[in-house]
Amino acid sequence: MVSIDPGAGRIEVVRRKDGQHRQEAFDSLMIATGAKPVVPDVPGIEAEGIFGADTLPVAEKIRRFVDTEHPRRAVIVGGGYIGLEMAEALLECGLEVSLVEQAAQVMNTLDPDMGNRVGEALETAGVRLYLEESLAGFEMRNRRLEAVTTGRRELPADLAILGIGVRPNSSLAQEAGIPLGVKKGIRVNQRLQTGVAGIWAAGDCVESFHLVSRKPFYVALGTVANRQGRVAGINIGGGYATYPGALGTAVCKVCDVGVARTGLQQKEIEALGLEYESVTIVSSHRTGYYPNAGRIAVKILAEKSSGRLLGGQMVGDIDGVKRIDVLATALQAGFRVQEMIHLDLSYAPPFSPVWDPVLVAVRKILKKF
Amino acid sequence: MVSIDPGAGRIEVVRRKDGQHRQEAFDSLMIATGAKPVVPDVPGIEAEGIFGADTLPVAEKIRRFVDTEHPRRAVIVGGGYIGLEMAEALLECGLEVSLVEQAAQVMNTLDPDMGNRVGEALETAGVRLYLEESLAGFEMRNRRLEAVTTGRRELPADLAILGIGVRPNSSLAQEAGIPLGVKKGIRVNQRLQTGVAGIWAAGDCVESFHLVSRKPFYVALGTVANRQGRVAGINIGGGYATYPGALGTAVCKVCDVGVARTGLQQKEIEALGLEYESVTIVSSHRTGYYPNAGRIAVKILAEKSSGRLLGGQMVGDIDGVKRIDVLATALQAGFRVQEMIHLDLSYAPPFSPVWDPVLVAVRKILKKF
Repeated sequence: MVSIDPGAGRIEVVRRKDGQHRQEAFDSLMIATGAKPVVPDVPGIEAEGIFGADTLPVAEKIRRFVDTEHPRRAVIVGGGYIGLEMAEALLECGLEVSLVEQAAQVMNTLDPDMGNRVGEALETAGVRLYLEESLAGFEMRNRRLEAVTTGRRELPADLAILGIGVRPNSSLAQEAGIPLGVKKGIRVNQRLQTGVAGIWAAGDCVESFHLVSRKPFYVALGTVANRQGRVAGINIGGGYATYPGALGTAVCKVCDVGVARTGLQQKEIEALGLEYESVTIVSSHRTGYYPNAGRIAVKILAEKSSGRLLGGQMVGDIDGVKRIDVLATALQAGFRVQEMIHLDLSYAPPFSPVWDPVLVAVRKILKKF
Repeated sequence: MVSIDPGAGRIEVVRRKDGQHRQEAFDSLMIATGAKPVVPDVPGIEAEGIFGADTLPVAEKIRRFVDTEHPRRAVIVGGGYIGLEMAEALLECGLEVSLVEQAAQVMNTLDPDMGNRVGEALETAGVRLYLEESLAGFEMRNRRLEAVTTGRRELPADLAILGIGVRPNSSLAQEAGIPLGVKKGIRVNQRLQTGVAGIWAAGDCVESFHLVSRKPFYVALGTVANRQGRVAGINIGGGYATYPGALGTAVCKVCDVGVARTGLQQKEIEALGLEYESVTIVSSHRTGYYPNAGRIAVKILAEKSSGRLLGGQMVGDIDGVKRIDVLATALQAGFRVQEMIHLDLSYAPPFSPVWDPVLVAVRKILKKF
């Protein structure tokens, strides 16, 4: 147990094992408490065989459970990055895998059409998808998990993984009177200072700033946490650095499919009241005649009035989707699609068609401007 | 044979087979005569077994020669993209391959340190490198190639490939009085108009404009030709489009190594009289613990006074070097390295370390600013 006394410049630590109090004075205090997984308050949540997937020790527990208990049927609750990566891992372990997701698509950070491509890939890989079904609870016998129940059905399960998101672990900060922001992430300025002098925060416990919407948002990503940590460290060490914000750029491998996204998606653009154009193209990610030329779907979204790029998404061959970084860089530059058509991207048959898939998408959306 | 009479808005074609003249009037004329390979004027150049590598029919001839004549020893003259790709292809065909290059490194579009990495990879793959040796001529017996001679030695050869560059095929334009530019590339404006009304040109036959140096330069790349062709086509069709210029972005696979470059290299920066800082880092291109995490060397160059990115080069795992496009996009945005540290590039273990190799290089160069 830890508590912070900001006025006195002091933290108080109560040791867990013997209850002893210890006080530690600070000039600068860094809060890096991260995020904690959402644990649903449903019947049976205490059953053996239900795991989150948030830390390395938990992953080791899951591995041990698979190796010693030989579960046959796994149910994943939640179709985000963690849920999908766990689905892949458990398929690899030879389990039957079902996935329950309350939305109409997996991967809610993608638009529905792109999320559906991921869903199809999951089904092809052997995952049974139950979309638009909410977790109702868990059935158990002798404390051991027997089934996952949704509003619509009961799915027999020897193992269940919770991947329904995380929230900032900000209660320590909140109790110390440090102002919070979106989703209770600790509010920080560009130097990663909290609202209380001498106290800094970075990582999954803080609110971020979106470089396209120019508004605060919450995103729990290792990239963001790392970059914020660097900036906070420089500042605490007496230097001067700023962290302007993030785009929510992310990439993920699910079985044979790569998934990537950056910037704003449809629903976020609509919530901002902006009008937009979008296109989705499917292209070979190497030159078509080259061996192992897989397919990649590229979606881009641009502001209707100006052509300014707002976001992009990719689903397809694993070797093709890292080019999401081109869209992230273009977003950071504030490029309009009219400028992006001139991007001098590289080409050789093992790497790309002459017109990189990004440029194929740009050519197509340009017809609307 | 073709000749252009710009004043009359007419081209004159002489048919090769019967010498008949034909005239064709034009409102708009598009010159897309491409480039032609440099053929050195040395003794023995007419020997059987010497090939360029500029067109598909020539490639088919080489293939046929390999299949029917069973050459054992090949000598490549020139260590650029074509020379290196041909070295790989002939190794694949089971030949002994030597490569002669007059410079002190292969791949002169890279800086010496990065070119040397490519050279080492070639030697590892089994290519014998002869650097700083100029082609002196070819020995033959009964009209058939027997050896390639340099200033220093005689290399026995059953097959020789010329990969010593191309030059704009601009004589048709020149004879018509159309102004030429750098390296005799046809001079065009951003709409791809030549200096003569009604006559347009695009592709390997034209002079390009470098987006970093802001000066004309010559570059023969399929990407540039394609993009220029699109712009010229729109304009000739009555639309309005511009082609602002290029960065010389290129990527290439040589055996197990990927090679990529964009923007200005050291010698170009020095020729412009600019001062610069540069760093080279070597990083895993996936997360280090992930299977098949290869290494990639990333070099970036930035202007000393401002930190403005000037160029970048990559040599390493084939799956890692397409990220050169991030540097190309950053160059097009005019980013300084101080801004690039904030690039929100994607991360997941199969794709990248948390700090993408591009960002690792940026972090390192930032210490100099």
